[in-house]
Amino acid sequence: MDYYEEALKIHEKAGGKLEIVSKVPVKTRDDMSLAYTPGVARPCMEISNDGRAAYRYTAKRNLVAVVSDGTAVLGLGDIGGQASMPVMEGKAILFKNFGGVDAFPICLDTKDTEEIIQTVKNIAPTFGGINLEDICSPKCFEIEKRLEEELDIPVFHDDQHGTAIVVTAALYNALKVVDKKIDQVRVVLSGPGAAGTAIVKMLFAAGVRHMIVCDENGILYRGKEGLKGHKVMLSETTNEEMRKGWLADAVVGADVFVGVSKPGVLTKEMVQTMGRDPIVFAMANPVPEIMYDEAVEAGVKVMGTGRSDFPNQINNVLAFPGIFRGALDAGARDINYEMKVAAASAIAELVEPEKLCPEYVIPSVFDERVAPHVAKRVAEAAVRSGAVRE
Amino acid sequence: MDYYEEALKIHEKAGGKLEIVSKVPVKTRDDMSLAYTPGVARPCMEISNDGRAAYRYTAKRNLVAVVSDGTAVLGLGDIGGQASMPVMEGKAILFKNFGGVDAFPICLDTKDTEEIIQTVKNIAPTFGGINLEDICSPKCFEIEKRLEEELDIPVFHDDQHGTAIVVTAALYNALKVVDKKIDQVRVVLSGPGAAGTAIVKMLFAAGVRHMIVCDENGILYRGKEGLKGHKVMLSETTNEEMRKGWLADAVVGADVFVGVSKPGVLTKEMVQTMGRDPIVFAMANPVPEIMYDEAVEAGVKVMGTGRSDFPNQINNVLAFPGIFRGALDAGARDINYEMKVAAASAIAELVEPEKLCPEYVIPSVFDERVAPHVAKRVAEAAVRSGAVRE
Repeated sequence: MDYYEEALKIHEKAGGKLEIVSKVPVKTRDDMSLAYTPGVARPCMEISNDGRAAYRYTAKRNLVAVVSDGTAVLGLGDIGGQASMPVMEGKAILFKNFGGVDAFPICLDTKDTEEIIQTVKNIAPTFGGINLEDICSPKCFEIEKRLEEELDIPVFHDDQHGTAIVVTAALYNALKVVDKKIDQVRVVLSGPGAAGTAIVKMLFAAGVRHMIVCDENGILYRGKEGLKGHKVMLSETTNEEMRKGWLADAVVGADVFVGVSKPGVLTKEMVQTMGRDPIVFAMANPVPEIMYDEAVEAGVKVMGTGRSDFPNQINNVLAFPGIFRGALDAGARDINYEMKVAAASAIAELVEPEKLCPEYVIPSVFDERVAPHVAKRVAEAAVRSGAVRE
Repeated sequence: MDYYEEALKIHEKAGGKLEIVSKVPVKTRDDMSLAYTPGVARPCMEISNDGRAAYRYTAKRNLVAVVSDGTAVLGLGDIGGQASMPVMEGKAILFKNFGGVDAFPICLDTKDTEEIIQTVKNIAPTFGGINLEDICSPKCFEIEKRLEEELDIPVFHDDQHGTAIVVTAALYNALKVVDKKIDQVRVVLSGPGAAGTAIVKMLFAAGVRHMIVCDENGILYRGKEGLKGHKVMLSETTNEEMRKGWLADAVVGADVFVGVSKPGVLTKEMVQTMGRDPIVFAMANPVPEIMYDEAVEAGVKVMGTGRSDFPNQINNVLAFPGIFRGALDAGARDINYEMKVAAASAIAELVEPEKLCPEYVIPSVFDERVAPHVAKRVAEAAVRSGAVRE
């Protein structure tokens, strides 16, 4: 099937992928007097008296905004808010299908950091959560941080944390396969953009202690010239051995390679310098950092990619629907690392010990147990970590 | 039935009144490859090449934002954006039920004119139209005007124009009942707020030539001291006879009274000073400017109110679903007066000549012919007046 041509036809025929429907009837005068005026005044007054009542009487309780300025759309780059609408609608229907979350695309006509922050704050009363999507690095960090601080609803940049959570889940199980301990392995990350940076933070939160990060100029180390912003932070929190050089130097002796960078940057030769039973998550899309067959030939023990045509697909859809489902169900104010780690554990748990093997360290995206189980664990973690509204 | 208590129960049970559903399946890998990555890249590229393609491939083609800062919510006043959510959700489901329009509430956390304008502009790519709702006067005028100028999608403040259009429709038919000509009657309007001001403009556009406007300080006339903003404009475009005094002075000899003001301001005695066969549209809610029975006793020939328990209910729902349906179907850039007058005519036309009588000058809100007929006439007027996108 030619996905591109077929996708165009389907989008035109459906006229967009989502619609808004009523959950209550409005066919009679009585219906209208309850759903609209005069009866509607009553829930309005309840909310006016106590804003928390909005979660009881309005769609806010289950509504997530999928917000994008279209500056980093999958494989297409900066195409702007209007052109990103098909992706945001797609994301919205995945939210509904996998998590039962009502999600609505907000495609922005601004790329300015402060305006994005102000706009999202201004429309926040409608929503119970904010999912930031396809906003380029580094501004995505500032936007997420500020919105987390300034809003009392969960804010989550999926390109960062969704990927990070699923990689962490895959790593938990891969380490069981190769019988190594998370606090002893050395992880090399290639591509410290939005997702890469979040993966580093997430892996630290999950128990990894030794990491090296490489960008297109080689290994990051403390004090390296020319580093800016989040890369300075990464250079200070990773690479305690002060290794210098290039990716080829970084991977020598490494246990785990995580790529969110470019096709082909990891060669067979480089894999052969890694430690015993290498784990490789090569998530450049659609062509990974090393192709599946090459990696296995070079001795990779557990291999994951972003693709559906190889084993161990690292796909965000394993994380975001359940995470928001759990956060909304628990009445969470934010999505903290305890909740993210709980989500990763929940995903990993669903691979039964007797089925665990190099080709199956992560559940299928169509495993219907995933979202409810993630939601449950995330909600528990929200309560445990004090992230719920009073 | 106690509408208020029952409404609270229904809102809680449903957990909000709207949900977002998918129009395409996302159950298999192929589904996901078409609705989401990689296939979704194709419609994105089409829109990136030509923004107009958004109307072909995305939900924009049928999506209207119902935007409110909650500063003038029906009967409740300034309760803020969050507390207005039940009203905006209610409006959204009326849009869907009566017009097949997908409408989404945007409840704002700002009451600042410039911030509202900027926020709506920033989120406009998602939407094919903007319905402003329950935003207080006078800022609603500036917000609507600026958004009309600065956006290429229709912008419509329903509290202004919805009421104005339905009043005009009722007036068309009421004038047939009393056998008077629209360009010869004198209309007195009480309450020049958002709706009142729009009614004056609309009646001029519909052919009325003689109008007098009264606020709580009496008749507006050119040069009157203490007038500001839109009241200066009203004082300069109405009352060419320079009548002065109070509402009681204004209605002497008048053919039509239109009230969007306060309960009880029109007395039986005042009605008795009006011209032959008075027409009274008394729309203060829930208690009109004069009660139905009193008005009839005093000699009013055609009486309309905002209430469903009397004949001739002047209800916006007769207008807004069909107007947006027509504007979206035609690909209109705005909703101009030619389209508004066409909507009023369309509503009036549906009262068959043989059924026309003092108690039936306006169709029922449940008359299923209304929205499609309004949509058709509005779309025709959009084409005729050059309001459609190229």
